Amino acid sequence: MRVSFGKLKSQLKSILLKHGFGEERAELCARIFAENSRDGVYSHGLNRFPVFVQLVKEGAVAIHATPASISRHGVVEHWDGHNAPGMYTATLAMQRAIALAKENGMGCVAVKNTNHWMRGGTYGWQAADAGCIGICATNSIANMPPYGGTEPRLGNNPLVIAVPRKEGHLVLDMAMSQFSYGKLQEYELKGEMLPVAGGYDENGVLTKDPAKVRATGRVLPVGFWKGSGLSLMLDVLVSALSGGRSVAEITATGTEAGVSQFFLCLDAGTLDESVSEDIIAYAKSSIVLEEGAQVLYPGERTLSTRHRNEAEGIPVNEAIWQQVLAL
Amino acid sequence: MRVSFGKLKSQLKSILLKHGFGEERAELCARIFAENSRDGVYSHGLNRFPVFVQLVKEGAVAIHATPASISRHGVVEHWDGHNAPGMYTATLAMQRAIALAKENGMGCVAVKNTNHWMRGGTYGWQAADAGCIGICATNSIANMPPYGGTEPRLGNNPLVIAVPRKEGHLVLDMAMSQFSYGKLQEYELKGEMLPVAGGYDENGVLTKDPAKVRATGRVLPVGFWKGSGLSLMLDVLVSALSGGRSVAEITATGTEAGVSQFFLCLDAGTLDESVSEDIIAYAKSSIVLEEGAQVLYPGERTLSTRHRNEAEGIPVNEAIWQQVLAL
Repeated sequence: MRVSFGKLKSQLKSILLKHGFGEERAELCARIFAENSRDGVYSHGLNRFPVFVQLVKEGAVAIHATPASISRHGVVEHWDGHNAPGMYTATLAMQRAIALAKENGMGCVAVKNTNHWMRGGTYGWQAADAGCIGICATNSIANMPPYGGTEPRLGNNPLVIAVPRKEGHLVLDMAMSQFSYGKLQEYELKGEMLPVAGGYDENGVLTKDPAKVRATGRVLPVGFWKGSGLSLMLDVLVSALSGGRSVAEITATGTEAGVSQFFLCLDAGTLDESVSEDIIAYAKSSIVLEEGAQVLYPGERTLSTRHRNEAEGIPVNEAIWQQVLAL
Repeated sequence: MRVSFGKLKSQLKSILLKHGFGEERAELCARIFAENSRDGVYSHGLNRFPVFVQLVKEGAVAIHATPASISRHGVVEHWDGHNAPGMYTATLAMQRAIALAKENGMGCVAVKNTNHWMRGGTYGWQAADAGCIGICATNSIANMPPYGGTEPRLGNNPLVIAVPRKEGHLVLDMAMSQFSYGKLQEYELKGEMLPVAGGYDENGVLTKDPAKVRATGRVLPVGFWKGSGLSLMLDVLVSALSGGRSVAEITATGTEAGVSQFFLCLDAGTLDESVSEDIIAYAKSSIVLEEGAQVLYPGERTLSTRHRNEAEGIPVNEAIWQQVLAL
């Protein structure tokens, strides 16, 4: 079934209000969950909402806490998220990075003790909507072995890079594993093999079988040693810049809470928009491998899904929708 | 054969002086070429030197040109490299980004009309030596098809992230192709298969055969669609921020000259060094796939190669060494 964006958002908002959220935070968090489903990221939209409400009930998400700037070095601010809702803090942090960038060309906010931001792309779109280049990253619980290792010691630590563009922003939202656990599960439920190897089987051999990857937990980093190294560096960046928990420390707590993030903006006010157009057109001029295939720019699929879901309503999983209605 | 760092550097310097370089630039460029070989990046050390001298002779590298700041927005500067030697301009730009970061927490220099910087890691080590987190990127000539396409429309656009650390900096130096052309050639010359798929054969099937990848030119982006997207975003960042040439425009000129780069620094003066130590120790605690294997942090192999080559001398290809002596 499909529901309208307005209906989805107001339903989620009413539940958050019922669970003690104030008006502003309920509106913001409900909007972000609804936008994530609208943009096709169902795993971090409606489907994640019951988990979020559970964390609120358990007190892992401190719904009345206020993130605060604790120190500043020029255009770089250090915040303590005080375990407030992750989407709320991330939105405020990116908003502040935007303001710093408008004034100083560039600005950065590093945040410790924050919570899951759901879809990283959200904050990339936010920066680009404000006319800024936005770069942000988060760490996570350990869910991927480093290259050469067999046990999870790295987070998938998504990296987001967004560049504003009139015809639709360029937004790269890239986790460091070739496939997220959500994607692996999607393929497994459909009984399909992955399009490319997604990890190792019980014999340490690369496999496209999502069930085997989920069984071993040996998820493949993007580009083997390269994504493994980039994931480690992103953990160092978010943890060192914020003074917050690293993947190791998050994992030791047993729950994915109190994570570390940074939000970096560059003012794009004076940039020549034709640069992006030319680069996209050039990429799309490459003859495709299969008839009907196409080269997509980062963010293009999101935008087309958004337009379809705005026109036709947002697809919702009926069981989860019923579960949410009962919250 | 092996030569000492001092001998390698002074030999290269004397050739640059002979070709009209001033003292300061000859010293800097010779040092960087020699350091690249010392650190095991022979492809961008001695082995690249004859190509560089050829470009100097052809006038593609303007040895007396002076890179200049042309505009500034707060902590972000825009430079024109005026086609000066790429290593020289990159060093000055990173030096300026370091100074901006020390004063303002963070700084960025975007450079247009510059030349090949040889090894990107050089400028990461430079930032980290100065106590800064350094992030830099360059574009290049098109040498990799975008995901889904068959013709090269993306550069391998290396990304460098460096974090200072007493025991040896963390330095990620990552091109967006799974293997560089240099690496493919190395494997081909040794008659070995690649350890993982490096591209597509003539039937569009993934292959570990370096000769087939070189024949089709269908080099694989790191992590398929992910590295393809990241390469495109990096091209947008370096080109839009600097106002310089994109991969498309560089490729249209037929030579890899007049490229675009950015150099971003964050002051790491107040960062807690134990964060990196803990993250590295945690990664290394993962049980390895094969006996004797180990999990490495980005920069670790470089440092061990450096120490070995400092002790034993730098391995040089005898034919290339003779070629260089005759320049």
